[in-house]
Amino acid sequence: MTDSVKYVLDERDLPRYWYNIAADLPAPAPPVLHPGTHQPVGPDDLAPIFPMAVIEQEVSLEREIEIPEPVRDIYRQWRPSPLYRARRLEKMLDTPARIYYKYEGVSPAGSHKPNTAIAQAFYNKQEGVKRITTETGAGQWGSALALAGSFFGLEIEVFMVKVSFEQKPYRRSFMETFGARCIASPSELTSAGRAVLAEHPDSTGSLGIAISEAVERSVERDDTKYALGSVLNHVMLHQTVIGLEALKQFDMANDYPDMVIAPTGGGSNFAGITFPFLGEQLRGGRGIDLVAVEPSACPTLTRGRYAYDFGDTAHLTPLVKMHTLGSTYVPPGFHAGGLRYHGMAPLVSHVTNLGLVRPRSYNQLQCFEAGVQFAKAEGVIPAPEANHGVRAAIDEAIRCKEEGVSRAILFNLCGHGNFDMQAYRDYFDGKLMDLAYDDGEIAMALAGLPSVA
Amino acid sequence: MTDSVKYVLDERDLPRYWYNIAADLPAPAPPVLHPGTHQPVGPDDLAPIFPMAVIEQEVSLEREIEIPEPVRDIYRQWRPSPLYRARRLEKMLDTPARIYYKYEGVSPAGSHKPNTAIAQAFYNKQEGVKRITTETGAGQWGSALALAGSFFGLEIEVFMVKVSFEQKPYRRSFMETFGARCIASPSELTSAGRAVLAEHPDSTGSLGIAISEAVERSVERDDTKYALGSVLNHVMLHQTVIGLEALKQFDMANDYPDMVIAPTGGGSNFAGITFPFLGEQLRGGRGIDLVAVEPSACPTLTRGRYAYDFGDTAHLTPLVKMHTLGSTYVPPGFHAGGLRYHGMAPLVSHVTNLGLVRPRSYNQLQCFEAGVQFAKAEGVIPAPEANHGVRAAIDEAIRCKEEGVSRAILFNLCGHGNFDMQAYRDYFDGKLMDLAYDDGEIAMALAGLPSVA
Repeated sequence: MTDSVKYVLDERDLPRYWYNIAADLPAPAPPVLHPGTHQPVGPDDLAPIFPMAVIEQEVSLEREIEIPEPVRDIYRQWRPSPLYRARRLEKMLDTPARIYYKYEGVSPAGSHKPNTAIAQAFYNKQEGVKRITTETGAGQWGSALALAGSFFGLEIEVFMVKVSFEQKPYRRSFMETFGARCIASPSELTSAGRAVLAEHPDSTGSLGIAISEAVERSVERDDTKYALGSVLNHVMLHQTVIGLEALKQFDMANDYPDMVIAPTGGGSNFAGITFPFLGEQLRGGRGIDLVAVEPSACPTLTRGRYAYDFGDTAHLTPLVKMHTLGSTYVPPGFHAGGLRYHGMAPLVSHVTNLGLVRPRSYNQLQCFEAGVQFAKAEGVIPAPEANHGVRAAIDEAIRCKEEGVSRAILFNLCGHGNFDMQAYRDYFDGKLMDLAYDDGEIAMALAGLPSVA
Repeated sequence: MTDSVKYVLDERDLPRYWYNIAADLPAPAPPVLHPGTHQPVGPDDLAPIFPMAVIEQEVSLEREIEIPEPVRDIYRQWRPSPLYRARRLEKMLDTPARIYYKYEGVSPAGSHKPNTAIAQAFYNKQEGVKRITTETGAGQWGSALALAGSFFGLEIEVFMVKVSFEQKPYRRSFMETFGARCIASPSELTSAGRAVLAEHPDSTGSLGIAISEAVERSVERDDTKYALGSVLNHVMLHQTVIGLEALKQFDMANDYPDMVIAPTGGGSNFAGITFPFLGEQLRGGRGIDLVAVEPSACPTLTRGRYAYDFGDTAHLTPLVKMHTLGSTYVPPGFHAGGLRYHGMAPLVSHVTNLGLVRPRSYNQLQCFEAGVQFAKAEGVIPAPEANHGVRAAIDEAIRCKEEGVSRAILFNLCGHGNFDMQAYRDYFDGKLMDLAYDDGEIAMALAGLPSVA
């Protein structure tokens, strides 16, 4: 039998700086616009909901931004995260490919989300904030922020989409264990929630409604800010710790990836692993293939339009230029809840638009099939979101075999599936189906895009 | 804020040998007896159900037993496991104590169980075995053996106590993801199961019945052996990798524990962390306090009798001398299912009887309270079994504060609680109650002990 190989960095090699790709882009990303004036937003527009340190990061052009020491102290609990050579999977596939995966499931919340949750909690605490509000769908982000709040002594209020709140009581228990308050959305706590309930008393909620509630609760109190777990530039920045470590680990392995693969929902997982490699390429280093993998049922990069749109359904956010299916598009209820977002991080959209990324999409059944194959070989059950990356990596490894070439394939295993066993149960019981998007619904949602000159 | 500190050994420091405490005991442990003849059992008695390498380990007096290289290769996926200094917990408790915990939840099955599952699967594979049968209660052990079987290409059949099979579908999904067959016990597959069902068609099963079914399925097929996840000497041996690593990590920390704490169910978690330290003491090294923590509702060490008894309810196993509540005693249904066993590992019982261990017991509510406190400070939600160790460690840290002394307290955090969130849900909802053992039932079970001269 062939063993897997683990590349573990010393704590001294934990990065001291995040990498800001804005410094190396061949063209700047289009600015975020005020929804009323269509003029670029300034710090004052964002100050009611974000701490100033985060707003500065959002617009910074500095290549390296220092990771505060208290954030590194907490990162050290599980970072540097391991890079594995998946030798048992290679053997199972009988492929000449060298398959590597970076494993973010070692974090206490079981995903990559704490990389930014810890940082955002730190900056809020530093600026005297008492409470952070946020929304969560599947629960990964809410769990990460609950954990971060517990470490920094901040109150955390999580508006959880009601259907998930009811279907995933264990995610709620997880957040409550860390002292967070978890509220089913729509709720009676906000005017946004009350308005929805007045019209639809049985509403099961949506991420768009939950965002509106969280933002409203933040704006109405001086000691309260709001936090977002993906999409925005500062979130991409914080996640680059993943790729920066992976660069050092490939040095240890005396290898370099030909291809880097990651699932894309809001984009932070993809940005986290790929941007440091893309930065090397943009500064004249070796070119690599970047593959963004999304669900066929929510094909933002592969079928969406690159246009200015709102980040939420209720149109409370600024306008960002991104690949979008239209802010009113509601994706079907597949299991990778973390990938059910109508839009995409502006930075990921921008580099895709520049031709630097190859997006592709998969149906959920082929993703679960890959996840089970990976688990049998490597011992880790991936989260449904992570299965998208596993699927693409396995397909590329099979292609290597067909073409008789050995390529180094890196993918980000962004989280474990310990809280997603119902999805696997459904898969084994034959209850899981491939879900298709509706062309007409996407067309209708895209017709509603704001017109920006 | 004060950060936690992580002590990570280099892969080169992964132990090459397990530690066998039998070599250093001041008096040998009493032999295992044949239930019919009351004479010590020999290898031939055990050969139908265990591979010879395991049987040899069961009776070995060698101090060091080599860990086979293929087992070390797999250990390396998550080992050496981290040792943490719980500085945030110390600060929360405002204690002068130095609290350390060894974290076994980093294994792919989320507990210490793979340390022996991988080894047992290896020895079975080496001897040409095709299939391993076993039983599982809460599911930790079944999950670990399913994982090990997947790595070595062995079929795994797990008889899961029916009440758990129905209440914990996610544990079953976990095992099935790795290709294991999971069967609700009592089943129609065995004569033992059919006999129970004939008498009690609605039986929800018990660990004793599940053991009988698993053993029967092993004995009836030449290519099939049986595996046990605790109690026996070879299991204690394999788990010493935990304490051997901890010894090296205390060298890194320039410290040494005054006290080592671990929960005790069958005893392997306790033996794994404490025996290497106890060995140092027995060979003239520094004396330390060993604390075995058990549930008040299943008080094997604190209320049981040290006597020869059967390992299972159906009386198919040999007789072992151990602390026992009587093999027919059925503990109440508290949440730490891994600690619901009437007996105790003979080696743990023996060293307890020699006065080398201080056992104590806790109710489940005080354990969950400690677990939540630990999670808020350190970011990890412990399994209900592990909470027993957390409770004792916190109590000892508070005692340090009261007495104004700084002691180094080490406990083994044997697993995470990701699959136990229903228990936390019940705790938060006020549905969890302390459960008492029944003095009369224990007396009745003890009255049924076999009489051994």
